[in-house]
Amino acid sequence: MSADPLVVGVDFGTLSGRAVVVRVRDGAELGSAVTEYRHGVVDRELPATGRALPPEWALQVPSDYVDVLRTAVPAALADAGADPADVLGIGTDFTACTMVPATVDGTPLCELPEFAENPHAYVKLWRHHAAQPQADRINELARARGEKWLPRYGGLISSEWEFAKGLELFEEAPDVYAATRHWVEAADWIVWQLTGSYVRNACTAGYKGILQDGQYPSRDFLRELAPGFESFVADKLEHPLGQLGDRAGTLTAEAAAWTGLPEGIAVAVGNVDAHVTAPAARAVEPGQLVAIMGTSTCHVVNGAELREVPGMCGVVDGGIVPGLWGYEAGQSGVGDIFGWFAGHFARESHDELTRLAARQEVGEHGLVALDWHSGNRSVLVDHDLSGVVVGQTLATRAEDVYRALLEATAFGTRKIVETFAEAGIPVTELIVAGGLTKNALLMQIYADVTNLPLSVVGSAQAPALGSAIHAAVAAGAYPDIRAAAGAMGSARSAVYEPVPAHVTAYDELYAEYTTLHDYFGRGTNDVMHRLAARRRAVAKGRS
Amino acid sequence: MSADPLVVGVDFGTLSGRAVVVRVRDGAELGSAVTEYRHGVVDRELPATGRALPPEWALQVPSDYVDVLRTAVPAALADAGADPADVLGIGTDFTACTMVPATVDGTPLCELPEFAENPHAYVKLWRHHAAQPQADRINELARARGEKWLPRYGGLISSEWEFAKGLELFEEAPDVYAATRHWVEAADWIVWQLTGSYVRNACTAGYKGILQDGQYPSRDFLRELAPGFESFVADKLEHPLGQLGDRAGTLTAEAAAWTGLPEGIAVAVGNVDAHVTAPAARAVEPGQLVAIMGTSTCHVVNGAELREVPGMCGVVDGGIVPGLWGYEAGQSGVGDIFGWFAGHFARESHDELTRLAARQEVGEHGLVALDWHSGNRSVLVDHDLSGVVVGQTLATRAEDVYRALLEATAFGTRKIVETFAEAGIPVTELIVAGGLTKNALLMQIYADVTNLPLSVVGSAQAPALGSAIHAAVAAGAYPDIRAAAGAMGSARSAVYEPVPAHVTAYDELYAEYTTLHDYFGRGTNDVMHRLAARRRAVAKGRS
Repeated sequence: MSADPLVVGVDFGTLSGRAVVVRVRDGAELGSAVTEYRHGVVDRELPATGRALPPEWALQVPSDYVDVLRTAVPAALADAGADPADVLGIGTDFTACTMVPATVDGTPLCELPEFAENPHAYVKLWRHHAAQPQADRINELARARGEKWLPRYGGLISSEWEFAKGLELFEEAPDVYAATRHWVEAADWIVWQLTGSYVRNACTAGYKGILQDGQYPSRDFLRELAPGFESFVADKLEHPLGQLGDRAGTLTAEAAAWTGLPEGIAVAVGNVDAHVTAPAARAVEPGQLVAIMGTSTCHVVNGAELREVPGMCGVVDGGIVPGLWGYEAGQSGVGDIFGWFAGHFARESHDELTRLAARQEVGEHGLVALDWHSGNRSVLVDHDLSGVVVGQTLATRAEDVYRALLEATAFGTRKIVETFAEAGIPVTELIVAGGLTKNALLMQIYADVTNLPLSVVGSAQAPALGSAIHAAVAAGAYPDIRAAAGAMGSARSAVYEPVPAHVTAYDELYAEYTTLHDYFGRGTNDVMHRLAARRRAVAKGRS
Repeated sequence: MSADPLVVGVDFGTLSGRAVVVRVRDGAELGSAVTEYRHGVVDRELPATGRALPPEWALQVPSDYVDVLRTAVPAALADAGADPADVLGIGTDFTACTMVPATVDGTPLCELPEFAENPHAYVKLWRHHAAQPQADRINELARARGEKWLPRYGGLISSEWEFAKGLELFEEAPDVYAATRHWVEAADWIVWQLTGSYVRNACTAGYKGILQDGQYPSRDFLRELAPGFESFVADKLEHPLGQLGDRAGTLTAEAAAWTGLPEGIAVAVGNVDAHVTAPAARAVEPGQLVAIMGTSTCHVVNGAELREVPGMCGVVDGGIVPGLWGYEAGQSGVGDIFGWFAGHFARESHDELTRLAARQEVGEHGLVALDWHSGNRSVLVDHDLSGVVVGQTLATRAEDVYRALLEATAFGTRKIVETFAEAGIPVTELIVAGGLTKNALLMQIYADVTNLPLSVVGSAQAPALGSAIHAAVAAGAYPDIRAAAGAMGSARSAVYEPVPAHVTAYDELYAEYTTLHDYFGRGTNDVMHRLAARRRAVAKGRS
């Protein structure tokens, strides 16, 4: 049994929570455990009553999160064979923007008997998209008023974020809204359960809460948006901030009992899964772009200076590490596009498609595709865009289209990298994390398309490791995140190097992608919007 | 047993020949039989020697055609329970442009021992595409010289036709070229076998042989194309013409022995499968467009006047019936696009895809596609164009794309119909024939997209019936094709009527198709040419 100091990181994902026990000295992952959420994603009916939910709804049940603390943490300790007394601290990360309506003491409103049957009293998961009309109005008004904060978010606030979901609550469930004292990010709510006190983390406050230069959107703006909503910030949102890596508080006796950890150890300020991956990948310097590649891809990169990058998800002072500007971008469809194609348009498995596609030379399939099957989250920021494949002949086979889709997502990443660079945020290294790193063909295509060496994060559970790194900083074992990341994070450098001949060929195909990107995405031909509108009109006519 | 006069029609397709025994009085089909060609399409190796053929080659063996006369005709007579003595005449139709290099007495050169191992001595099937470089040169020179005949073919001569294949023979097999006395359409060669004498039909001479206003391309043009080729017309091609419906001659004793038909009966002038379908569908008046829909679609329509229609396959005086201008157009991929998609990109059968697609409303799938998977034969006339699908989301399923492809081919037909109308050849009725008429969903889509009532040809073996109609005219049973078509042809009128709500919706989707058609097809974005060039360059680098 090690007498080395340890920390625990817990990563709260969309379907489960994962705890990992990590050695402070070198980041070694000694044990881990996963707990699936009992209620998963609630998107069809409320568990208590069976009440049906409208489309685009996605809720969660907060007690599922506490169950992760009760079960995954002790299981990870057991898996590591660790003495809990050696654990200095615990850190967490969460999906975002996932919102909990809570009372003054943090009780989720869905746990009050009077609200148990009201879907608005539950956690609204990041992928709850029913607040799109509210988001549209926020964007329209902000544009009309020339709100200074809008360009910080690439010109568009998402329906997933705190204000859109808050306005939805205000307008559609006034009783729940009135009973809500704190409109809390789940990332902070879980920390509240661990420490007994509420600290709002600077990361989500900036990226999801429109906190810029110390200011939220003004009362004036909110009143114009909806009379009565002007006190939203003051009444529900505003709260003292904690910086990333800071200690939010110490573990309560109750949480110590849940987790089996010692009472009084440090608890780190809450964090977001994508952003906390950066220190796990030791990518905390400007120019190091971390791409977390799964069903979708999230990109985070630090910049020394504030730039307004068109079409990005957001820039936040200290959004990834204190002292730097944290930039976030994303591709809304990546792995799920490959899964969709393999699941519905191919008879071969992913492995077989990949094997066949890997035998091809660049351009052999004669195709170019746009990767907007799930819309475009960054650069164009348009959820009504859709996919395109150009160049099919009767000789085209499933592996050809599959490869074209892999390439299209790589072109999408290159578009983001170039947009950052053009705005003054140069990217010098691409560090990849997430489930898709297993696909060597995909990785080589990304290196060739971006002409960047591809490093791969060392850990298979990078967000949980990143949370553990934060725990070590919060516990005082390291002076800051940078130092902790240097000791505990890891990435294998330049695992995939660009092949010059491929780079040249892909430059030409990327030029084709760009032409189509601008033609379909920037208004020359708005066919995708018209097709989406028609699709929705027909669906509405049917219902 | 009927004492009614009978005729026999024989349709020579790509893989088999079909004979049908028809009652002269009313066109009743009393019996039929099919003979598969023993050698099928020779596109991999020569049967005699196993010598490998280059890509894009497609040959046939002429004795296979004679086997159809020997087996299918007697079998059809037996199937009909017909007394051969009642048969007044025989007519034939053929694929085109399918060329036989023959001696002065019609012997195919491949039947001479000295040429049995030379692939150039065999029949070059319509789909032999190796003469594309020759076609390119013909087109380039004709444009440069402003040859008057070029606009009659929509501005482009095909690699499938008599001159491109003739130049290929001249340049690549001078010995075979020198030994060729007649460069004969298979449509005429088979008639030659029946009558013992060579008559060149006006239809293929015009559509495939560039005979316009009584003139072939000039010696001067041919000399400039390739020195030594200037005597091609005079030496190999020029020959007295027969008009459609005329008697080419009478059945020889030898052919009577093959077929079991009486010696001396009338043999009709040769014809082309698509064109002979028009009288079978009773579509011999201006404005009646016949679409023969199978793996590809051929459109034929008569016009009272000569117009130059951009991008059409050709216009020939008496090309369908004497006295009218026969216009031909085509879509190079139709049924084969559906087959390709169902075969490689769907897990469901055609029937299941059709059943699922039929439940959708117009526009429900949110897609629009271009039908150029096999290039574009008419309007744009560009074999390097390729397919496009726009609008995929993660909710898109195989039946959605399948339906979008059905619609894309309907849009392609509408584009042809509109191009005819704009050039002064109005289309008032769409009459469909061929295997795809079985698909009721497809038929309704065509009616809705074109806003034309869809009539369906009465016979399931329309080309063979059309040949029988020609036989009846050649035998003198009717004064002309029009009268014979009226008595013997048939079409069920307006089987599919446009649904006004669908017409309106498709008008809007067709506008999307047109925008994409012009963007990708008329040079705004030449991406398809670049992708095709890259694909070919990679393939060449591999070989």
